[in-house]
Amino acid sequence: MNKINVGLIGYGTVGSGVVQLLEKRKAYIQNRFNTEFIIKTVCDLAIHQKDTQHIKDAKLTTNYEDIVNDPEINVVIELIGGLNPAKDIVVRALKAKKHIVTANKALISDSGKELFELAKKENCHLFFESSVGAGIPIIKSMTEGLVGNKFKGVYGIINGTCNYILTEMTKKGFTFAQALKEAQKKGYAESDPTLDINGMDSAHKLAILIYLAFGKKIKATDMYVEGITQIAQSDIEYVSHLNYTVKLLAIAKKEDDEIEARVHPTLISNDNPLASINDVYNAVFLDCDPLGSILLSGEGAGQMAAASGVVSDLINLSGKEPNANLFCNLYDENVKLKIRKIDQVKNKFYIRFMAIDKPGVLAAIAGILGKHGISINSVNQKVHDKTSAVPVVMLTDFATNKMLQDALERIQKLPIVKSQPVAIRIMEQLW
Amino acid sequence: MNKINVGLIGYGTVGSGVVQLLEKRKAYIQNRFNTEFIIKTVCDLAIHQKDTQHIKDAKLTTNYEDIVNDPEINVVIELIGGLNPAKDIVVRALKAKKHIVTANKALISDSGKELFELAKKENCHLFFESSVGAGIPIIKSMTEGLVGNKFKGVYGIINGTCNYILTEMTKKGFTFAQALKEAQKKGYAESDPTLDINGMDSAHKLAILIYLAFGKKIKATDMYVEGITQIAQSDIEYVSHLNYTVKLLAIAKKEDDEIEARVHPTLISNDNPLASINDVYNAVFLDCDPLGSILLSGEGAGQMAAASGVVSDLINLSGKEPNANLFCNLYDENVKLKIRKIDQVKNKFYIRFMAIDKPGVLAAIAGILGKHGISINSVNQKVHDKTSAVPVVMLTDFATNKMLQDALERIQKLPIVKSQPVAIRIMEQLW
Repeated sequence: MNKINVGLIGYGTVGSGVVQLLEKRKAYIQNRFNTEFIIKTVCDLAIHQKDTQHIKDAKLTTNYEDIVNDPEINVVIELIGGLNPAKDIVVRALKAKKHIVTANKALISDSGKELFELAKKENCHLFFESSVGAGIPIIKSMTEGLVGNKFKGVYGIINGTCNYILTEMTKKGFTFAQALKEAQKKGYAESDPTLDINGMDSAHKLAILIYLAFGKKIKATDMYVEGITQIAQSDIEYVSHLNYTVKLLAIAKKEDDEIEARVHPTLISNDNPLASINDVYNAVFLDCDPLGSILLSGEGAGQMAAASGVVSDLINLSGKEPNANLFCNLYDENVKLKIRKIDQVKNKFYIRFMAIDKPGVLAAIAGILGKHGISINSVNQKVHDKTSAVPVVMLTDFATNKMLQDALERIQKLPIVKSQPVAIRIMEQLW
Repeated sequence: MNKINVGLIGYGTVGSGVVQLLEKRKAYIQNRFNTEFIIKTVCDLAIHQKDTQHIKDAKLTTNYEDIVNDPEINVVIELIGGLNPAKDIVVRALKAKKHIVTANKALISDSGKELFELAKKENCHLFFESSVGAGIPIIKSMTEGLVGNKFKGVYGIINGTCNYILTEMTKKGFTFAQALKEAQKKGYAESDPTLDINGMDSAHKLAILIYLAFGKKIKATDMYVEGITQIAQSDIEYVSHLNYTVKLLAIAKKEDDEIEARVHPTLISNDNPLASINDVYNAVFLDCDPLGSILLSGEGAGQMAAASGVVSDLINLSGKEPNANLFCNLYDENVKLKIRKIDQVKNKFYIRFMAIDKPGVLAAIAGILGKHGISINSVNQKVHDKTSAVPVVMLTDFATNKMLQDALERIQKLPIVKSQPVAIRIMEQLW
């Protein structure tokens, strides 16, 4: 029997889930993998205030030195989140030749490259499946399962909170505020949901996916990021009549030496499986060469979803040597890759104006769009009301974001247009 | 630079794709993985009649002894398909300590257990990603990515030919015969499509998935298998009004000590992402504990889709020792598992009768269903025509297949029922 001593740092929801899952599956893991994982030490600053009934014989500590300095510990599970002191813990554990399992998206998106290099140097595993989409095997598929491919694009619904809110708005007709309240009530949104709903959580995860797909280190703050707070119930209703669903999509595409890296609400055609990814489910759609489109989906958050990813990582590192081939050299290939500015990115757009309903309105709006080189694919104006502003909905052909922005600024100045125009990008048809 | 000599046995469409992909990615694989794959020998019975322009310096042979007996060859890629002589080749190559990459579903479904044991004994890799769903990382996800989970069920659209035919019937209103002809014209169906359309191809692949999910070896011939040849255009149309899509689904479920293993046309609710898996796309839906539902989808057939899976396997075996933990002991766990007979399997059903349109018809049919303990969830009879038989469509609650079969036999004998009743099973709501 292969015995592996584990030090667990961070005993929150996921940490407790890992302890429970390892205990529940103890016999199964022993029988099937000839391995016993022994949780030797659990570290958490508040460990003495926590419910530790699931921890059996492990030493409890508030000092992570007790783990990184323990020569008997083979693997460190880091679940405290955030950059510091997680980075110090991981660096010191690797230097002490301990394998690492982490679910820390901030750490990997910020310092992944550096940590992979260190892990390679120390001949240690560094697994991080649960950092994106919890236990959905996205990382494993990108680094191993699909390794015979090159990646051309990554399209992800990778924030469960936003997906839940948009699903509630779509299915129940809720406003954003109502749906957010519902998400908080069900535990799908934090009391301060800012990082989820402003898209930054998705951007951090996208940075990890971009590194794995293209070998390029990009900061979340260098991406174009737009959250879901401005999505109106009326737009969700209008797009549903056009056979689209609104999702917060994290997008990375490579064309020649440029990468697009952006997070924003996106219209997805209802016959694309991504449009059916609802509630707190996550999905990542990979555009691979030569395999084509690959979709991976499942529950991307929650205690046991994340714990299952951590335990999968643990089992995968047991009994095999690190494969120095994976992760290595990747970053040498694409050093000249540049990020394409959002201004230059081309999209098709859904646009909506509230305009006075009188003859010549469409001609005026269409005229400005035409002058900016933007073709209109369809126009919809369902309501007619001579006395007040009515919605005018248009779908455009491809245009750069700059062209659209300039056109919208001019349109907004028309006296017949009564509110700020709404523009939502449309996902290209890949599937 | 890690140099790996490869012997390729079987130079058909996929074999040629592998050679081309390795050549095209040569520099990339060297840079990123510090590895060079050298195709040393290519064996095919008809190699001298084939277009071998993509093969550079390899020796060409019609005798596989030239590969299994060559001590310089490290890896054998087996792409001839079928059980014999593929099994002999793989056994002899393993005994000569050569790693194996194969895309052979017949071989793995028939002899997988025995070959995994041999590979483990010889400390060799045996990778077979492309045996199910080509390059979609289904095998990798089940054996590694999701290894922290137990599997409760597997639901797969794993035959591209059937999925293409059903998609054409759904989207274009084609009959089965028309759609099959279209599939043949486009190269998506063989001139003899029997094994695809009768469900046996799916059953072979399901046998592999069942072994990986439950550690149970089941022969395709021990499963309940029903193809798509009996699907009428009218049923596809009726179910679409009920918000369902017909797919050929391969299903395996474990409950206590019993496994359901079956392949049959199945109604899938349109809000399930599986309903949007169209054309030649494949998808596998895994019901995992504790992770919940996981969906993997992509192009499951075609030259480069399969080649990308083979090349991914090749890269994955390079530079790391076999992990004896994977595959091992799995089969010891569930020896007592039994296959549940289709009679005892419970499903909800779509049923359709052609019946004379007169008072009392529904009462008669419903009465017989009721006597057999089958509850009706909804009834639809859209057309009224006093002179000829009209379709009566019903959705039932859960009933065993035996209960339904008995009821249908009695209903068919009613003088008012004018053709054999149609019954299609409905997929349970998991997503």
